[in-house]
Amino acid sequence: MASERKINACVSLYLDTAYELQKEIEKAAKLNCQSVTIPTVHWNFDREFVREPLRSKHGQFTRSDLLLSSTNWINQVICRVGENVDLDSPIDRIRKHSERTILQEISFAEHLVQHGYMYTKLKGANCANFARTVASGALKGTLLVEVPITNPKSAQNCWRRDIEDDQAVQDTWQWWNAFRSYADYNQHVKIALELTTDVPKKEEIYRWLGEPIDALVVPANIFLTNANNYPVLSKAHQSIVTLLYRTFSCHFILKANPGDGHLGHYVEYIKHIVQHNHVDDPLQGFNDVLEIPLQPLYDNLDSATYEIFERDPVKYIFYQNAIEQALTDRVPEEEKDTKTTIIMVVGGGRGPLVRAALNAATKANRRVKLYVIEKNPNAIVTLTALIDELWKDRHVELISKDMREFEPPEKADILVSELLGSFGDNELSPECLDGAQKQLKDNGISIPCKYTSYINPCFAVKVHSQARANECSAPWKERVVSSRHMEQMYVAYQKNVYHIDNPQPVFEFVHPNCDPDPVDNSRYRSIRFKASLDCVLNGFSGYFDTVLYKDVMLSIHPFTHTKGLASWFSMFIPLTEPVQVRAGEEIVVNFWRCVASHKRSILQQLSSQAWCVCVWFWDEFGRV
Amino acid sequence: MASERKINACVSLYLDTAYELQKEIEKAAKLNCQSVTIPTVHWNFDREFVREPLRSKHGQFTRSDLLLSSTNWINQVICRVGENVDLDSPIDRIRKHSERTILQEISFAEHLVQHGYMYTKLKGANCANFARTVASGALKGTLLVEVPITNPKSAQNCWRRDIEDDQAVQDTWQWWNAFRSYADYNQHVKIALELTTDVPKKEEIYRWLGEPIDALVVPANIFLTNANNYPVLSKAHQSIVTLLYRTFSCHFILKANPGDGHLGHYVEYIKHIVQHNHVDDPLQGFNDVLEIPLQPLYDNLDSATYEIFERDPVKYIFYQNAIEQALTDRVPEEEKDTKTTIIMVVGGGRGPLVRAALNAATKANRRVKLYVIEKNPNAIVTLTALIDELWKDRHVELISKDMREFEPPEKADILVSELLGSFGDNELSPECLDGAQKQLKDNGISIPCKYTSYINPCFAVKVHSQARANECSAPWKERVVSSRHMEQMYVAYQKNVYHIDNPQPVFEFVHPNCDPDPVDNSRYRSIRFKASLDCVLNGFSGYFDTVLYKDVMLSIHPFTHTKGLASWFSMFIPLTEPVQVRAGEEIVVNFWRCVASHKRSILQQLSSQAWCVCVWFWDEFGRV
Repeated sequence: MASERKINACVSLYLDTAYELQKEIEKAAKLNCQSVTIPTVHWNFDREFVREPLRSKHGQFTRSDLLLSSTNWINQVICRVGENVDLDSPIDRIRKHSERTILQEISFAEHLVQHGYMYTKLKGANCANFARTVASGALKGTLLVEVPITNPKSAQNCWRRDIEDDQAVQDTWQWWNAFRSYADYNQHVKIALELTTDVPKKEEIYRWLGEPIDALVVPANIFLTNANNYPVLSKAHQSIVTLLYRTFSCHFILKANPGDGHLGHYVEYIKHIVQHNHVDDPLQGFNDVLEIPLQPLYDNLDSATYEIFERDPVKYIFYQNAIEQALTDRVPEEEKDTKTTIIMVVGGGRGPLVRAALNAATKANRRVKLYVIEKNPNAIVTLTALIDELWKDRHVELISKDMREFEPPEKADILVSELLGSFGDNELSPECLDGAQKQLKDNGISIPCKYTSYINPCFAVKVHSQARANECSAPWKERVVSSRHMEQMYVAYQKNVYHIDNPQPVFEFVHPNCDPDPVDNSRYRSIRFKASLDCVLNGFSGYFDTVLYKDVMLSIHPFTHTKGLASWFSMFIPLTEPVQVRAGEEIVVNFWRCVASHKRSILQQLSSQAWCVCVWFWDEFGRV
Repeated sequence: MASERKINACVSLYLDTAYELQKEIEKAAKLNCQSVTIPTVHWNFDREFVREPLRSKHGQFTRSDLLLSSTNWINQVICRVGENVDLDSPIDRIRKHSERTILQEISFAEHLVQHGYMYTKLKGANCANFARTVASGALKGTLLVEVPITNPKSAQNCWRRDIEDDQAVQDTWQWWNAFRSYADYNQHVKIALELTTDVPKKEEIYRWLGEPIDALVVPANIFLTNANNYPVLSKAHQSIVTLLYRTFSCHFILKANPGDGHLGHYVEYIKHIVQHNHVDDPLQGFNDVLEIPLQPLYDNLDSATYEIFERDPVKYIFYQNAIEQALTDRVPEEEKDTKTTIIMVVGGGRGPLVRAALNAATKANRRVKLYVIEKNPNAIVTLTALIDELWKDRHVELISKDMREFEPPEKADILVSELLGSFGDNELSPECLDGAQKQLKDNGISIPCKYTSYINPCFAVKVHSQARANECSAPWKERVVSSRHMEQMYVAYQKNVYHIDNPQPVFEFVHPNCDPDPVDNSRYRSIRFKASLDCVLNGFSGYFDTVLYKDVMLSIHPFTHTKGLASWFSMFIPLTEPVQVRAGEEIVVNFWRCVASHKRSILQQLSSQAWCVCVWFWDEFGRV
């Protein structure tokens, strides 16, 4: 599951000009920089100059591509475009000339680097024509858009007495939000976020976490000098670098004077900070990869999937603890040699819950008899072998059936199951356990005995664009073709996400279910959230927690997440279209859990003053 | 362009049974075998046996998956399924039991190896229900179907006097053809072709080259013993192994008695044969990769594409020779210091033809003046730099224009172009050169002066299934979405192909074109081919040759291919549906080249006694 990663941050050296390109690349390499960021157009060439018609210079606006091999262009050069243009000038002539210029530069840059990197600079929110011009054509490569993390004006203003402290200086996220909206969320356009001496508020930094950041621009002027006269970053800058690298594995672009004697130290320091603050995450390879949730009731899991889930380092210890407590609660010490507790494991898989129950019985020193019910015939093979080889001296009976159909010869004291999905009930645990409940004594215990789902509004550009492009992965299925890909719940290990407000509970289920028959598992809830900043909403993150027994709980709710628990990623529920939200506005979302005889659906309705969005989710019941 | 490959053939050891699987894998590894091929169901388990209802054994029809980790299952085990079943038995009970059995085995095999390999054996052409049963479900992995290369009966028959020599013994390709047709060309089903002591005729071996062969099964009994008592293969068997490995990079499955003392030698010998007969092919990485042809008139090429084409080791030498001959023919020795020859390079790219023309002039010792016409503004940058730096003492004039629009100040003696595609005219060379012809003197020379396209009917499963799945690559475009993907010409470096008959010429173009104005570049030709064996037709391979000047020719026609020429892969023209063809049958195909003011199309109509297929091809003219 772990993907090994060498933690070696890539740094590109930003050069105002590169007279001898090959030499500049070699010099940068000696400083440990993998590439250089240079203007596509060389200042040496006068672009307006046109000689006689036949021997014209009008084509030669820059240097020849023969300077480097195409491999080197692609890997070692980031081409800057549109350096001295104003695409949103009110003056027609300037605007039109700017359009022609930047399109010519992009064409030439792509001629050189193809699918590689280009780079341009955003100077304000007045960028409609700029965004449309660069994003309306079919970009082949990635266009990095430089955005400063704070508005340069705010630094100036704080020295001026005539400007009041809270007078609005537009924050630079607004620039970017305008740009990418005009660019219609073009996936080829990404952010090169430039650090500034000023550091924004925490919430403002978090808002960047949902955006498509690809590079972090580090100017030399933010470095301080330590006691040994070496350049270092302030604690605040360090923590931004660490946070953004952990989230995006972004690369770095160093802006410094080529004559600066500390050039090598800056690069070294950036690499050091990244390496030093690295926390090994075995799930790193799953970052922001959108997956369709498992439907174990419908599809039989395969060997490798069972293997991954069985590897969870804490889940089965918690189950074992819960069963142990339930056993000792149910059978007093004095009856331990006479009374046998009947445990039913419903959905036995390849036996991890059986193992937990047997261990719990041994630890609690109680007599147990186990029934294991499993519907997957391939897992039955494993369970049979385990019973024959490992558990032959224990009381374990194997039932090869769907749990909803099994008629038990005796009723159970404890019903153990692991049917929960990332949103709690989304793998149909309520329906399955209601069906299995007839196997439980009236005073019997269900482990888990309660689960609750939670959501919060979010902006997460990467998973959302995967959903929009219908690019999710479903490891257990050959290929997923779905025309309703925006009307579906997904799971993802979300890193690239801004959580707009704190999670709130949605649905709760309790087992055994004492409601009068027929049990009603439909639900409805309306939840209100509030945005503290201007932001964009493009979906909801979902979680769950569960009480296994008394104080033994499992949770993937971010505020109470069980340490080390790896079996569940959070849920992502996309909105078809992103919605602009103003600071202070309320987000009202209505969730329905609908039931039909063979289907279950969640209907979600999002509403505010101005807009209303509906999304439907359906889960098919398994073939029974 | 070259993809490096370690030539180390993979060998799997075929075991009738594997009592202790882990040990068998270790033993096989010591023999240099990467995997073992074993029955999914272990003989130790009686599948019919069912005990009392609650402690039933009915699920345990084989061993537990816990024997190996899932990684090892996937990489080191090929699971055989359907070993003792008869899915096409006339007896209902046997047939139905066989269906249940093989589906259970496939389900369990996929539980173990997921996207890995399964293996089954084909015993005759009566396989409709077998094929439907295994291929109608959604196969996750690859199902290898063992097919012997000759019918075992033919070996028996030649010993029996009562059977006449030419009495029909069905060849095994017919078995496979029946199976894959019933399986509707399922891409998860591939061939494990088993060698037999008998060797089929050459044409019959070639017919396998179009099929999806994934493995070659080598039984120990085909080995001979050499003077040193080591096992070797006959020359005939060696050449089959070499041919199939070169075509498919297939892996090997060794069938031998586990007690055979030569086991290690067999493996060693197979690896030796592959290594020894390996011919390094720098284009290997392109094998059977379907690409959409370039449209340089419509799309501007990028730096990397120019770089690849300029690297062709022979093309520009031939051009240089052609220009040199034309120069000496045109200017007699005595006029060499007084007469200047005007050469126009139309479509200069980054200058390879300019270089060839200048070299030719130097070698021929003739005075030349060059005009270079190029429409791509990014290539103009390169040409300008080359003229300023490299060719400043030569007479080279650069014209940044579409060649059809250029009004020359003087007319040319020689017009040089490289506008040919894999089918000759398919990049619109006739239209471009007709337009440029006004720049040529009446007695001027065009290089090339003639080109001809060729086709032959073929069966090529890999490129055809890519076309059907719309999976072609177009390196210069971000993404290709085409709903008319079967009505299009492709290029591919074809290896996995059976050529049903020899190529025949289709269209011919001559330059300068002396036809009366307006020139008519529409064409029509009806061509007849004959199948020498029963086979399947799923498309046509296309080629071209060209006379540059007099005896200087370039060709990708397979019988006259210019040695070392790498700029063009052959064409592939798919049929929407494969067509079964009987030996001796004629294949009649009609090709039209249609012209309109802004489009050109090829209409292809395929007809025979029974069927008639139409395919349309369109190429857009460039934006001019």
